[in-house]
Amino acid sequence: MNEKKPPHPNRPIGRERDMARAEKTSDQLCAAYPVRGGDGPSSYAVNSVYQRGAVAAAKEFISKAIEEKLGTEILLSSKTFRIADLGCAVGPNSFFSAENIIEAVQLKYKSQGLNSQTLEFQVFFNDITANDFNKLFRSLPSNRQFYAAGVPGSFYGRLFPNASINLFHSAFAIPWMSQVPKAVMDRNGPAWNKGRIFYSDASDEVVSAYEAQNAEDMERFLHARAQEIVSGGLMVFFIPGRPDGTPHSHTLPNVIYQILGSCLMDLARKGVVDEEKVDSFNIANYLMSSKELENAVERNGRFSIERRENLDHFFAHDTVYKSPQLLASQIRASLEGLFKQQFGDEILDELFELYGKKLEEQQSMVESGKAVVFLLFLDA
Amino acid sequence: MNEKKPPHPNRPIGRERDMARAEKTSDQLCAAYPVRGGDGPSSYAVNSVYQRGAVAAAKEFISKAIEEKLGTEILLSSKTFRIADLGCAVGPNSFFSAENIIEAVQLKYKSQGLNSQTLEFQVFFNDITANDFNKLFRSLPSNRQFYAAGVPGSFYGRLFPNASINLFHSAFAIPWMSQVPKAVMDRNGPAWNKGRIFYSDASDEVVSAYEAQNAEDMERFLHARAQEIVSGGLMVFFIPGRPDGTPHSHTLPNVIYQILGSCLMDLARKGVVDEEKVDSFNIANYLMSSKELENAVERNGRFSIERRENLDHFFAHDTVYKSPQLLASQIRASLEGLFKQQFGDEILDELFELYGKKLEEQQSMVESGKAVVFLLFLDA
Repeated sequence: MNEKKPPHPNRPIGRERDMARAEKTSDQLCAAYPVRGGDGPSSYAVNSVYQRGAVAAAKEFISKAIEEKLGTEILLSSKTFRIADLGCAVGPNSFFSAENIIEAVQLKYKSQGLNSQTLEFQVFFNDITANDFNKLFRSLPSNRQFYAAGVPGSFYGRLFPNASINLFHSAFAIPWMSQVPKAVMDRNGPAWNKGRIFYSDASDEVVSAYEAQNAEDMERFLHARAQEIVSGGLMVFFIPGRPDGTPHSHTLPNVIYQILGSCLMDLARKGVVDEEKVDSFNIANYLMSSKELENAVERNGRFSIERRENLDHFFAHDTVYKSPQLLASQIRASLEGLFKQQFGDEILDELFELYGKKLEEQQSMVESGKAVVFLLFLDA
Repeated sequence: MNEKKPPHPNRPIGRERDMARAEKTSDQLCAAYPVRGGDGPSSYAVNSVYQRGAVAAAKEFISKAIEEKLGTEILLSSKTFRIADLGCAVGPNSFFSAENIIEAVQLKYKSQGLNSQTLEFQVFFNDITANDFNKLFRSLPSNRQFYAAGVPGSFYGRLFPNASINLFHSAFAIPWMSQVPKAVMDRNGPAWNKGRIFYSDASDEVVSAYEAQNAEDMERFLHARAQEIVSGGLMVFFIPGRPDGTPHSHTLPNVIYQILGSCLMDLARKGVVDEEKVDSFNIANYLMSSKELENAVERNGRFSIERRENLDHFFAHDTVYKSPQLLASQIRASLEGLFKQQFGDEILDELFELYGKKLEEQQSMVESGKAVVFLLFLDA
């Protein structure tokens, strides 16, 4: 039996139509779509359950990193410990993460012989401006041990004052690029992505454009964080990635998008969808290899990789792959808003019904896809 | 010609139904209703224009206070200046206030021979959790000179870590109490407010209950701020109040609510509205006298009144009083959501049409109402 991994269908999606807006205001540089709000069966909050499992499973790693690596001077120098979660969506995973981190910091504080009662926590929940912060705020745990704040804006730009955050956290958000690469949207250029909606099964030119966009985004991401983090601070990121030696097209979340793209082309051939619209539509998500990730950190030069765990066994999650319908509904939950805007409301049922069927037909391809989530600890 | 002042029809309203919730979670202690969102002609953003005038008019006072009173040690000790606006609603007045304050702090910084380029600003926009933070975030100025964050929760409880805010600002929000006084909601008690929706034209028992609730709220408000403000910090509050020597029932915003209450009773007599619903409905707003305000500050004991301006001439705003229809639509803009929940959607048109007529009939009473807005500067 092949190893099975879930996709990460819970994050916003970039697309070209927002790029003009992205150029206007720095806090909208992340030309991305918010996750679907609401509490219905296909909403983000429900479908993010498997990620909660991942966060719980990684709790031990995080506690250990905080215990071993968090600069002691931080705990001594301030009575307020500030945490920022980048790409928080609408909860509740972001709350669980914050609570895990706080617990670990309190333990560390006590282990230094300090009175943890005097330490206060402030947690900044960040996502793009289009995120549903109202929903996030309304679902904040009432018994929380921290002061909460929401910070709207793209994490590819500055979000916080200099040296003001003790610990950055981000789960599953970093693969979402700031925008679809411009080259891919150039109808007359070599990277025009005709007949596809993603890079992993596309021409070398498209792959290169995605690679370059990701490299540029990572540079901006790390540059901003380097200014915002306090000396001795820690960054903890869950980054779905591409396993070493696995081609883009065989990496698991990518396989899922490829099949969805082929469904759109089927509908285009049937005349249900305008083919032009498929050509000009791309999902702004890129999965780095461990090498690309290391290179990005090295190029920035302000952080050292304290530790990198390759979480693969944590992400086995049979149910979703044994039920192509469930998988289709998860993907629909995260992409519906995006597809609606590009293709119209009326194709959604047909598209995702076809998608469910195709996932079933190609189940062996899905199951043979390889996945990894890098759990990365960076020291400032 | 009598002096004419506008009401302050732009803030959320407390009511009993939320009190149970208020008892559950500390961040919802302010059992208040959010202002009406959206951009329509009767929305908050449009109707708050007159307050913008007030903020602009008071700019000079604020600049002067910052120049003279803001502790210099604050500017030297940190590279980040943190501002919190309490009761921000959905903008844009909150943004104008923040910009005015930032400009004044930069001037002060320069006047100390410091390089204001190195100073960064972080502005926390606070309002109750039910506020439309999505709208607030989407309308943040794109060219802002500050890092923005939203903080949901009642300002009658703690919102920020100890000693973390340099300057608190609040405009027109403080009269909104955390809840309708419990005594006023006791059907069998002496303060049951039968046939009225407000305290100013009610029995002594009702007035006392409002007074006591306000005193308790002010105690909690100042206690929380005293912990959150840095030493040498400044608080700047616009507080609509009751002019010395003016009875509650002749104070201007109160007159406006009294007339609205009488309209509801007219509808109750006509059988359009259930009288029981009028009896159990109260607006949780209280206007302090200067003495009450001073007493509250004194009782808390952690702040000194640096200055108190009585802004009355700034608030003359003929247009709204010369047009009872305009006034009625302003009041509707702010109270619609509240009235809808208590009395149902279907009475709104009739209620506010009647209200417009009554305001016209009683224009001399409106125009003879006295008003004051205290601009209060408190030193930590």
